[in-house]
Amino acid sequence: MVKQARARITRDAIVAGAAEVFRRRGYGSASVAEIAAESGMTKGALYFHFVSKDDLARAVIEEQHRRTMTAVAATLEEGRPALETMVVLCLGLAEQLQADRVVQAGVRLTTDVSTFEQPVADPYRDWMRTLAELTRRGIAEGDLRPEVDPETFARFLSPAFTGVQLVSETLTDHADLLQRVRELWAFVLPGIVATGRAKALQGLPESVGVSR
Amino acid sequence: MVKQARARITRDAIVAGAAEVFRRRGYGSASVAEIAAESGMTKGALYFHFVSKDDLARAVIEEQHRRTMTAVAATLEEGRPALETMVVLCLGLAEQLQADRVVQAGVRLTTDVSTFEQPVADPYRDWMRTLAELTRRGIAEGDLRPEVDPETFARFLSPAFTGVQLVSETLTDHADLLQRVRELWAFVLPGIVATGRAKALQGLPESVGVSR
Repeated sequence: MVKQARARITRDAIVAGAAEVFRRRGYGSASVAEIAAESGMTKGALYFHFVSKDDLARAVIEEQHRRTMTAVAATLEEGRPALETMVVLCLGLAEQLQADRVVQAGVRLTTDVSTFEQPVADPYRDWMRTLAELTRRGIAEGDLRPEVDPETFARFLSPAFTGVQLVSETLTDHADLLQRVRELWAFVLPGIVATGRAKALQGLPESVGVSR
Repeated sequence: MVKQARARITRDAIVAGAAEVFRRRGYGSASVAEIAAESGMTKGALYFHFVSKDDLARAVIEEQHRRTMTAVAATLEEGRPALETMVVLCLGLAEQLQADRVVQAGVRLTTDVSTFEQPVADPYRDWMRTLAELTRRGIAEGDLRPEVDPETFARFLSPAFTGVQLVSETLTDHADLLQRVRELWAFVLPGIVATGRAKALQGLPESVGVSR
């Protein structure tokens, strides 16, 4: 048991070190030797846990996705109306991107299309599925117009958020991300909220808090 | 003169070869030797024109930006209303991303945040400046609401487009990009068009043609 716990700690340290090196150098320029040094491990110890640089990058993405999905599940459990939940999910991911270096690295490895031979598509699909489901609920709850197609809206919102966070990283290292996400929602809401709900929901992106 | 023309042809071939290799392998994994081979040049000839891989990547981005800005200038000269011009610019860039491999490579090198130590910010700033100016004109022409802040809208639209094209590349290799850009505009228009113009402009993203 002690041995297993120690292996787990070692693995976590390597993933954190890999995230740090990938963030700093990008996938292509990062080396396994550098990741071992950053993690305070020998290359031998590292190769005991991971077979290749590709394997390390996938472990970082996996750990990022796990952390993000844990936060998503916590938000879903709060039982807010579906539209408000979507806004809170976007702001919550924005906060993770500002505060958590593993999340930064995982998202960067995902959006850097050149990282792998086959670009990483599953996180987008997961987000689109969640957002489409919430859009359906938002229509049922009367906040969203019945004409909004849930799949089409999800296929727009997830990429739009992706671009907003990417350009925020490029221009301000994510410093202005929360403000940019609020503006995204302010431009999007008029096109989707139900006629009678427009006034009530106008201030939504500004009014919902995020930090737990 | 003949010598200069030949140097120009050589340089263009190297940029095209570099674009191809960067597209296929990403910046970090691409090698100068591979780019020389792809261009049909010796490494010596290549180093006569470019000092490093970094220099080659910047040349690809520069050539992409030149082609994109040439298309932008042509669209601006057509003298359409400003709002319609913005829609046509987005669809035009979408078509370039589908058809021109140098444009694909240049945009990919720009959006892959890990490509350079300092991520490439100028293309976003150029787009935001152009879009803010068109938004101002759109307000003056009565198509857009006077409350729309041109800088804020430009700072939303350019990243949103960036994300839409990036996810379209990831999921469909840009095959669905025109449709995704039309959907982006369909969700955005209700939040920005002037009250009296809503009906007239509703079908805009579907109605404007792009291919010249």
